[in-house]
Amino acid sequence: MDEFQFIQSIQPSYYRQSTLIKGVSDDAAVFRPTDKDVVTAVDTMVEGVHFSRKTMDPYHIGYRVLAANLSDLAAMASSPAFYLVSIVIPQGWSEQELEELYTGMQELASFYQMDLIGGDTVSGSELSISITVIGYVEKDRARYRSQAEPGDVVFATGTLGDSRAGLEILLNGSSGEASETFFIERHRMPDPRVSFALELEGIPRIALNDISDGVANEANELGEASRVDLHLDMDRLPFKSSIKDLFPDTYKDWMLSGGEDFELVGTVEESLWPKVQQAAKKAGVKVCQIGYVQAMKKKDPHVYLHEGEKKNVLTKSGYTHLNKKGE
Amino acid sequence: MDEFQFIQSIQPSYYRQSTLIKGVSDDAAVFRPTDKDVVTAVDTMVEGVHFSRKTMDPYHIGYRVLAANLSDLAAMASSPAFYLVSIVIPQGWSEQELEELYTGMQELASFYQMDLIGGDTVSGSELSISITVIGYVEKDRARYRSQAEPGDVVFATGTLGDSRAGLEILLNGSSGEASETFFIERHRMPDPRVSFALELEGIPRIALNDISDGVANEANELGEASRVDLHLDMDRLPFKSSIKDLFPDTYKDWMLSGGEDFELVGTVEESLWPKVQQAAKKAGVKVCQIGYVQAMKKKDPHVYLHEGEKKNVLTKSGYTHLNKKGE
Repeated sequence: MDEFQFIQSIQPSYYRQSTLIKGVSDDAAVFRPTDKDVVTAVDTMVEGVHFSRKTMDPYHIGYRVLAANLSDLAAMASSPAFYLVSIVIPQGWSEQELEELYTGMQELASFYQMDLIGGDTVSGSELSISITVIGYVEKDRARYRSQAEPGDVVFATGTLGDSRAGLEILLNGSSGEASETFFIERHRMPDPRVSFALELEGIPRIALNDISDGVANEANELGEASRVDLHLDMDRLPFKSSIKDLFPDTYKDWMLSGGEDFELVGTVEESLWPKVQQAAKKAGVKVCQIGYVQAMKKKDPHVYLHEGEKKNVLTKSGYTHLNKKGE
Repeated sequence: MDEFQFIQSIQPSYYRQSTLIKGVSDDAAVFRPTDKDVVTAVDTMVEGVHFSRKTMDPYHIGYRVLAANLSDLAAMASSPAFYLVSIVIPQGWSEQELEELYTGMQELASFYQMDLIGGDTVSGSELSISITVIGYVEKDRARYRSQAEPGDVVFATGTLGDSRAGLEILLNGSSGEASETFFIERHRMPDPRVSFALELEGIPRIALNDISDGVANEANELGEASRVDLHLDMDRLPFKSSIKDLFPDTYKDWMLSGGEDFELVGTVEESLWPKVQQAAKKAGVKVCQIGYVQAMKKKDPHVYLHEGEKKNVLTKSGYTHLNKKGE
């Protein structure tokens, strides 16, 4: 099978989105947003940098790269609609592996009724996949990092540190604990929080950010964009109980900066926090308060991590250092 | 400069498109098409496959990869609006080279008033650039390959084979002819026919395809999509006179299948052909008739190449073979 045949073989035989006018059969795709805002993002993963064949089957690679993209759409509270795939394929990859990779992508896409509307398949020396996703959101309802305000509740979905724990198990071997399967799955097939984000629609103002690099990083991004301080409570950060048993020395660090959990962190005014909890319930997602927002105390925004009586500055990389005198 | 700093440094300080709501400062970009159709395509280029540092400076690489994408938008007659860039950077690339690459892209983008609205910069072992472009077109005015009809004039813009000639000069050294500069420029900095395509707006039906793989391939794509036969006249294919002097033995092949000229090939009903010529004049682009469309004579569409008294079947790859008896 040559490149052309392969592209033919992955061409959709039908489309799901009613706003699509032209799919992959021309120089470009055409769609007609009906009174909606359009949301778009791109994400690239390279073998040996973002994943390895040691820890991922082709199916997982395809699944995960699309999931990472969908997580960006979720963080804007937009409905996934289309995706375009560009893939650089090295010689070592068989036709079957390539099909598995696409199957991983297509399964997730079909769950969200997404259509593949463009792509490019080229040869190269290392596997690299770049996906552009396109989604819709009601006018002026995209959720920005800049929408946090003093007094807001800070919340997070799901549990943190799971993906990093899963990677550890995959790299260093299983100890045979049944609970390990959960973490491996979380690493290979993350579940973007699209449904939860869409359930928030009735809430006028909400700040959202997806947790791709660790909540320490993302909380700082929220603070910077909104020019506020965030106070997080270490004891409220959500974790799966078995992560503490399996990795007692490292799980706290992984919760803060393990990354790639693809959960959401956000802020909402206190009176509407119950609505966020209801939305989570409807979407079948866990959500919990992890802190609160305060007006900036210094000339730059900061994130503080409280643990018992201690209060430390939390940097983007998850490093904490003692609050300087008078802060 | 680390990756993060680099991304910061290429972030636009302002945006040009009035329909953009959120640029690169969040999880995704947001725009609001005002009563238009949206057109999108992706194109990827890999060092060593699609270009080499021997024949291209970083500036040219950036310029050319965006030009190839814009050519897809031109083939749909859509106005360029946004682009997202994903780039895999190997260790050997310096910060300065990277900036030059982006400068090449930005210069072309700013000519078309395009905004960079997303991107991902990751490390890897070989340079690969993937661009997603987004454009607008009036509702139901995108130009498809499937719109050719019997009786149509087949036309092509510009001159053909230039890019291949430029590559030849770059690879095998210059003979010192002044005319060589033209071909080198055509290879490194192709000029997508956006303005010409937009000038065609008043014409109700027109088929368009961009010449990225050679007119032999693209004419076959038009024929297949429209289920018609195309008859091309070798003597009418447009070429720069100096290509015949420089490459007398190969220029005809290159015109048919050299590829990457990023001109447009299209068809229009005969009565409106003068309007196409006027559009070209307004856009400052050369256009000429290269053949005509006929109803399918066999059960599949064919492209025929006429040269003097001879009439051959022209395959996608540019190979010609004698018409079988009775055809």
